[in-house]
Amino acid sequence: MKKTLYIFQNGELRRKDNSLYFESEERKRYIPIEDTNDIYIFGEVDVTKRFLEFVSQKEVCLHYFNHYGYYVGSFYPREHQNSGHVVLKQAEHYLDPGKRLQLARTFVKGSIGQMAQVLKYYKNRIRTGSEKLTELIEIFGDTSIPLFEAGTIEQLMAVEGHTREKYYSSFDYILDNPDFPFEKRSQRPPLNRLNALISFGNSICYTVALSEIYKTYLDPRIGYLHATNFRRFSLNLDVAEIFKPIMVDRLIFSLINKKMLTKKDFDKHTDGIMLSEAGRRTFVSELDKRLQTTVNHRHLGKSVSYRRMIRLELYKIQKHLLGEKEYSPYQSLW
Amino acid sequence: MKKTLYIFQNGELRRKDNSLYFESEERKRYIPIEDTNDIYIFGEVDVTKRFLEFVSQKEVCLHYFNHYGYYVGSFYPREHQNSGHVVLKQAEHYLDPGKRLQLARTFVKGSIGQMAQVLKYYKNRIRTGSEKLTELIEIFGDTSIPLFEAGTIEQLMAVEGHTREKYYSSFDYILDNPDFPFEKRSQRPPLNRLNALISFGNSICYTVALSEIYKTYLDPRIGYLHATNFRRFSLNLDVAEIFKPIMVDRLIFSLINKKMLTKKDFDKHTDGIMLSEAGRRTFVSELDKRLQTTVNHRHLGKSVSYRRMIRLELYKIQKHLLGEKEYSPYQSLW
Repeated sequence: MKKTLYIFQNGELRRKDNSLYFESEERKRYIPIEDTNDIYIFGEVDVTKRFLEFVSQKEVCLHYFNHYGYYVGSFYPREHQNSGHVVLKQAEHYLDPGKRLQLARTFVKGSIGQMAQVLKYYKNRIRTGSEKLTELIEIFGDTSIPLFEAGTIEQLMAVEGHTREKYYSSFDYILDNPDFPFEKRSQRPPLNRLNALISFGNSICYTVALSEIYKTYLDPRIGYLHATNFRRFSLNLDVAEIFKPIMVDRLIFSLINKKMLTKKDFDKHTDGIMLSEAGRRTFVSELDKRLQTTVNHRHLGKSVSYRRMIRLELYKIQKHLLGEKEYSPYQSLW
Repeated sequence: MKKTLYIFQNGELRRKDNSLYFESEERKRYIPIEDTNDIYIFGEVDVTKRFLEFVSQKEVCLHYFNHYGYYVGSFYPREHQNSGHVVLKQAEHYLDPGKRLQLARTFVKGSIGQMAQVLKYYKNRIRTGSEKLTELIEIFGDTSIPLFEAGTIEQLMAVEGHTREKYYSSFDYILDNPDFPFEKRSQRPPLNRLNALISFGNSICYTVALSEIYKTYLDPRIGYLHATNFRRFSLNLDVAEIFKPIMVDRLIFSLINKKMLTKKDFDKHTDGIMLSEAGRRTFVSELDKRLQTTVNHRHLGKSVSYRRMIRLELYKIQKHLLGEKEYSPYQSLW
């Protein structure tokens, strides 16, 4: 399987012959492009136009993060999968309020299902709060009625928002670590360490989904739950809802519990708290391992990686749009 | 209104203080970012990461084109003015049969108008057949009724097809050259020299329209007269209908009449006739001159190049889709 390349050093990315070539003060390095799925740039890296033409030809996306680890933007090569038919169907499902609501509801349902799954996993593994988690799992299981009754995207978003708030309130039981209290969700900037981790993890999750969308016929501009404005890609945000609990939140718990990330890995800035560069390196490298981890896929009856699972989810959405099979979100069993 | 910046020189784009800064061998230039909507890069331009962070913060998209003018890919900031809105409107006009028919009819009307214009130009410049061309011009002028009555895309295509057949039958009068008889329209492969020229010219015209579409918010996959399908771009085919008569056909007549292309410029293959490499070079170089030729634009009251005229046509289509102004096709007066 192709790999993700993470660049934390400063330097320049170029094309040399038929390879990627990265030159920094410390080292020069050839990277075979055929093995590269996408590139995450955290360091101060300059790129030549010839390099961009090369990655475009090889259908490799670039994702940029700034000095503080904030997502900056992506280089999205010209679409190689050219299907006006799918984009029309995507638009049709957006323009028809009933069809849009059905898809948006499915994303929220999938997201809540995955949040419940995370709670189920930790319910018997924590010291205190087990009954609290059990209670939440029951509430989450009962969301089908409010979800069904939500008649607008705004009402759906509200159901999702309330559920997520309850879900986050369980983090203090799961972590039980005075260095990582949840307090409340704070973004731009995050105001404590746990929020810094959630924000950073989610932003990576969005770009992973974007890279996978690029490999399908789908257009990232047209989302269903997150298409309330036209200021950013949105289909990747929809799909990420389903994978954030298992991909990001469980990774955060595991990194903190195993003390792979401690308070030393955070920097205090004037207006918030961010992961340090070392912390980002650890997080990204562990997330990458997780993305490559294969899990048994009950419908396929074989092991697939998490990254592949995101792609499979996109194929299911495509089938739904084409009227081949109604979309039902991925639900992990562990 | 914010402007689009086009960069054709080679150099480097950087951030300097709160401005964009472009440095090439020939000149250094500050560009106020607040006035910039998006940047189209044609030259060999390198960018620093700091520059990308800056455009991201200002929500400016970058679009890259290679040495041959082909679209390579785009840098999309995290938040950007997203063309998702336009693609939805494009889809809406495709999915609504009445709206689609109206646009498709406008393309056919524009195309027939331009064919008539070519005949008007040659009517008094040819030795024989002037009365035949006059007759055709009258018939073409009368197409508004069958166009209006066509209630399906297929019926529109039939009106267009019959008109085009009559139009092609005039080529023998216009050229009056035994080396370039029209005979009948043959494609894939063309069976004579004139058909080889028409096919080659049209294919270039489609790519010119495609590269101009990439400079707008329009999605080339969704056309109206040419059905959207899985296999090709179609909006460029629609727009090219309007420009083929003046851009391609008149160029063919001129190249043959001036003997810039003769029968030596064609190769016979087992199953058809094709322009030779030398012939293709001549054709493309002359077409390029024609594209750069400026003509007076009656609405703008200034001279614009043919290439620019195609872009203006696309902006008009965009305005139509956004409900700002009903689209009326370009009609040359000479």
